[in-house]
Amino acid sequence: MSRYRTHTCGQLRPEQVGAEVKLAGWVHRKRDHGNLLFIDLRDHYGVTQCVTQTGSDAFAAMEALRSEYVVSVTGKVVARTAETLNPNLPTGGVEVVVSSIEVLGEAQDLPMPVFGEQEYPEDIRLKYRFLDLRRERLHNNIILRSKVISSIRRRMTDQGFMEFQTPILTASSPEGARDFLVPSRIHPGKFYALPQAPQQFKQLIMVSGFDRYFQIAPCFRDEDARKDRSPGEFYQLDVEMSFVEQDDVFNAVGPVIHGVFEEFANGRDCGPVDFPRIPYREAMLKYGSDKPDLRNPIILADVTEVFRGSGFGVFARNIENGAVVRGIPAPGAAGRPRSFFDKTNDWARQEGAAGLGYIIFDNGEAKGPIAKFLDADRVALLKTLANLQDGDAIFFACDKELPAAKLAGQARIRIGDELDICEKNVFKFCWIVDFPMFEYNEDDKKVDFSHNPFSMPQGGLDALNTQDPLTINAFQYDIVCNGVELSSGAIRNHKPEIMYKAFEIAGYGPDVVEGKFGGMLNAFKYGAPPHGGIAPGIDRIVMLLADEPNIREIVLFPMNQQAQDLMMQAPSEVTLKQLRELHIRVVAPDTDKKS
Amino acid sequence: MSRYRTHTCGQLRPEQVGAEVKLAGWVHRKRDHGNLLFIDLRDHYGVTQCVTQTGSDAFAAMEALRSEYVVSVTGKVVARTAETLNPNLPTGGVEVVVSSIEVLGEAQDLPMPVFGEQEYPEDIRLKYRFLDLRRERLHNNIILRSKVISSIRRRMTDQGFMEFQTPILTASSPEGARDFLVPSRIHPGKFYALPQAPQQFKQLIMVSGFDRYFQIAPCFRDEDARKDRSPGEFYQLDVEMSFVEQDDVFNAVGPVIHGVFEEFANGRDCGPVDFPRIPYREAMLKYGSDKPDLRNPIILADVTEVFRGSGFGVFARNIENGAVVRGIPAPGAAGRPRSFFDKTNDWARQEGAAGLGYIIFDNGEAKGPIAKFLDADRVALLKTLANLQDGDAIFFACDKELPAAKLAGQARIRIGDELDICEKNVFKFCWIVDFPMFEYNEDDKKVDFSHNPFSMPQGGLDALNTQDPLTINAFQYDIVCNGVELSSGAIRNHKPEIMYKAFEIAGYGPDVVEGKFGGMLNAFKYGAPPHGGIAPGIDRIVMLLADEPNIREIVLFPMNQQAQDLMMQAPSEVTLKQLRELHIRVVAPDTDKKS
Repeated sequence: MSRYRTHTCGQLRPEQVGAEVKLAGWVHRKRDHGNLLFIDLRDHYGVTQCVTQTGSDAFAAMEALRSEYVVSVTGKVVARTAETLNPNLPTGGVEVVVSSIEVLGEAQDLPMPVFGEQEYPEDIRLKYRFLDLRRERLHNNIILRSKVISSIRRRMTDQGFMEFQTPILTASSPEGARDFLVPSRIHPGKFYALPQAPQQFKQLIMVSGFDRYFQIAPCFRDEDARKDRSPGEFYQLDVEMSFVEQDDVFNAVGPVIHGVFEEFANGRDCGPVDFPRIPYREAMLKYGSDKPDLRNPIILADVTEVFRGSGFGVFARNIENGAVVRGIPAPGAAGRPRSFFDKTNDWARQEGAAGLGYIIFDNGEAKGPIAKFLDADRVALLKTLANLQDGDAIFFACDKELPAAKLAGQARIRIGDELDICEKNVFKFCWIVDFPMFEYNEDDKKVDFSHNPFSMPQGGLDALNTQDPLTINAFQYDIVCNGVELSSGAIRNHKPEIMYKAFEIAGYGPDVVEGKFGGMLNAFKYGAPPHGGIAPGIDRIVMLLADEPNIREIVLFPMNQQAQDLMMQAPSEVTLKQLRELHIRVVAPDTDKKS
Repeated sequence: MSRYRTHTCGQLRPEQVGAEVKLAGWVHRKRDHGNLLFIDLRDHYGVTQCVTQTGSDAFAAMEALRSEYVVSVTGKVVARTAETLNPNLPTGGVEVVVSSIEVLGEAQDLPMPVFGEQEYPEDIRLKYRFLDLRRERLHNNIILRSKVISSIRRRMTDQGFMEFQTPILTASSPEGARDFLVPSRIHPGKFYALPQAPQQFKQLIMVSGFDRYFQIAPCFRDEDARKDRSPGEFYQLDVEMSFVEQDDVFNAVGPVIHGVFEEFANGRDCGPVDFPRIPYREAMLKYGSDKPDLRNPIILADVTEVFRGSGFGVFARNIENGAVVRGIPAPGAAGRPRSFFDKTNDWARQEGAAGLGYIIFDNGEAKGPIAKFLDADRVALLKTLANLQDGDAIFFACDKELPAAKLAGQARIRIGDELDICEKNVFKFCWIVDFPMFEYNEDDKKVDFSHNPFSMPQGGLDALNTQDPLTINAFQYDIVCNGVELSSGAIRNHKPEIMYKAFEIAGYGPDVVEGKFGGMLNAFKYGAPPHGGIAPGIDRIVMLLADEPNIREIVLFPMNQQAQDLMMQAPSEVTLKQLRELHIRVVAPDTDKKS
């Protein structure tokens, strides 16, 4: 038996009444009822009410306790009276009448309280993270995170995947983001890089003849913080499989993601295990985004033909110059006041658009500033294309295809929220498929890779040799849930000759391929299997499940927005001796510019 | 169904005879019997023999295949004839008569073969690790490693431990080894450090109110490579528990380690789940090491009294000057030739000792160069103290206590090996306990911490205030298996006042404690529970289970001894732009010295 406790603070029930017990934990709350003293004793597992009265040997000791003292109490379990039962607390049927108290750790005055859920400034919360982590909500988030990861591991292992650790000290990788560098002591002037993702390693694992790999992998990007991205490090469920096509990856990974969400959904609906598949181009057309939030019922429509050659000159002229018109239906918005339409327009102007025209269908009539420019046939076509009923309204975004889609996509989100028509308590998944392999880079006036150069082009070498590059799709896919991109993946290009050709199309010679991906490319020359994978972001999965919009609420010891650990004081200055051993010198930013 | 295969290469059995199947894998071996062509097709799961004969459509295609081509073959499962059955192969009852072959990936001439187990130079093996990993032994080691880690995780979770990830970009820590540093882009002149171990974080997790933490934690030390230590990174099973004493840690962690060894012992005996406990001082006396290999039956004896005031002047004079004599019994060695004793002596001289005297007990007589200096009483005492029988021999190490123990300990290992008397096919575990808290540092002529300053001194503040520091033990412990230190752990010092006092004894003021361990010490002031933990090394566990003496045989993508990844070309040079962003400049070693 432990010296400090016989039970945890979440364990006692009426069955234990009469037992002599020992509990250990933190003084969560103390209440003084004159001749009765109460403390709520808290540990990882729960809270138990402890009580003593004047005359008890323990009274003075309990009186001396302060918030967050760590104590071990000995006492007898008694049933609570009917009027003091607490049905909200698992231990609420009993209390412990304390006979003695041992103080295990004292606590100074707290910079922030643990009891209660009031907001505290972020710098205080991060500096005293060990206090913040004692608070119920954050504590539970971190437990959820641990359980989610454990569940993912179990599900992956059950499906025959093996977890391998790939190196963390490795070579600078060409993933596109900025690397964290680690100077080498043994090799002056050379640097390791922390992996942005184990992309090349997981492909090398396949070339090494392992069949189904996964890793809860730490990844590192030296990029500025965002709400859904920690500065520095983050974790992904890194997955790769051999001898697979796209469907095989979907069939392996889809059920894992769906299963994890079901396990922790807590009553929220997770939809079917077979996520709907939406081609990239369809997603851009119908949702104005490759990360569509399917809780939102609004489906965009291409209504260019309604305005082509119409009396609404602004749109008609833009269409002549290559613009398109996207319609954003606003179901049931006809009854909304004028201010709703004005505000939506104002918002669009803040987003840099010229504004959003709109039409209201009310009592069988098309109303609003644009309606008068459209004849009955055009109005009928509009209602058909956008699936509009009397009582609906529709907004319009007119621009070149991509900006029109983006504006319409953002308007779709805003209008869905404003009208409060999005489904609630539901996780809506989809696969986005058929991403274009290449895109036209307007800045550099050249064809470039759309996403990542590792993906296998649909149609293989033949397609690269014969098709217009901008029409080639890649075997590349995302999992999107509630408008959040959980994951991106692909069937890889495992053939050197296809890789050389793909890079040639994007304007890179063999030297670039070999310089950037030499380790992997070299391996492909010695017998590479077809393979593919995916890498769902752990942090985003937990954020969705915990319903927390900020990543710092689901990470144990996060850095602040300025990439500082306020508790451990990182980053910090180091000694000259350390720098000398690493053959580097610090250059002040000013000096830097001159060098 | 997958496009590439219906079964894996380890799956087919006589029950599938007659089935049309598809297999995918690597051409492991190809044999040409004239009108019959065989290939052994290999994947992660096994090997299946595939055959085709002249006249078959597939003959020419199979003829064109070379070693390590990746192919998908279609064919019919047939039973092997009695004389071609291969009982050593799980699929050895059948073969596949190939009707068609699709080449999925070609292979150039190999720099090292995959088939066969011949040795290859390490630099070739590391550069082409993806080929080496296809070889059976290394492949199986890596699978074992993955399974061991997965088993550990399951066992820890089953015991109510939760896994949490601690930061990898953190502050320089005072663990004693050299840190890897990561320059900060946002904070010029400041650096993150990669954790040598998550020591402070796991203690902070306890202060945060989590009860049972573990992590398969990557750790980083910029130290030179050894056989059992990778340069750079390694993994440990990091564990910490709240409200525990030493026994609670043993009861939680011992069964996990023992269970993992039993699971993968493959017939080797693992002894009892309750590991014997050996106090540090007893270990040094009986085994001359705090990492005793208990497979070795030799137990050292303190035989100082045998030689004190004896006629063997060298020992007698040394004893007067404070030396001790350790006896190293050599059971049954009396029959060994003179060369055995001479070689053992030569070895001791190479180790820097003056030599090892010895006595042989043969036919009721004590023989050898020293025997004549000891009278019958002394010889009798010697036999009693060292538990010697007729037919045994004994060697002597005479020196100050610590060097005598060390030399005797090494002689014990050597003699045990030479006499081939160590148990085989067995894992012998023990806990080493009661490590001294402090030691006398001969170089600095001062009292210093023996191991780590985080441990709780036995007797607490009272002991620090009243005892001779050199007599104080710490609640610190190791797990040792077959002479390998698997793990080191301790009950922590969670009280600031005891920590200040312990550092004071070692000559460090409050400023040092606060500067070095500020994050943790600060947390201890706001309610810290008693806690303790341990951190078994994953690599060493796998090395023992795989029976591999070199860590590079059980790590997926290891660096070489010079801390280089020969496959990925790390470390490497980076661009000036990258260095500027990080506010550092490379200083050539020569310039460095002058600076």
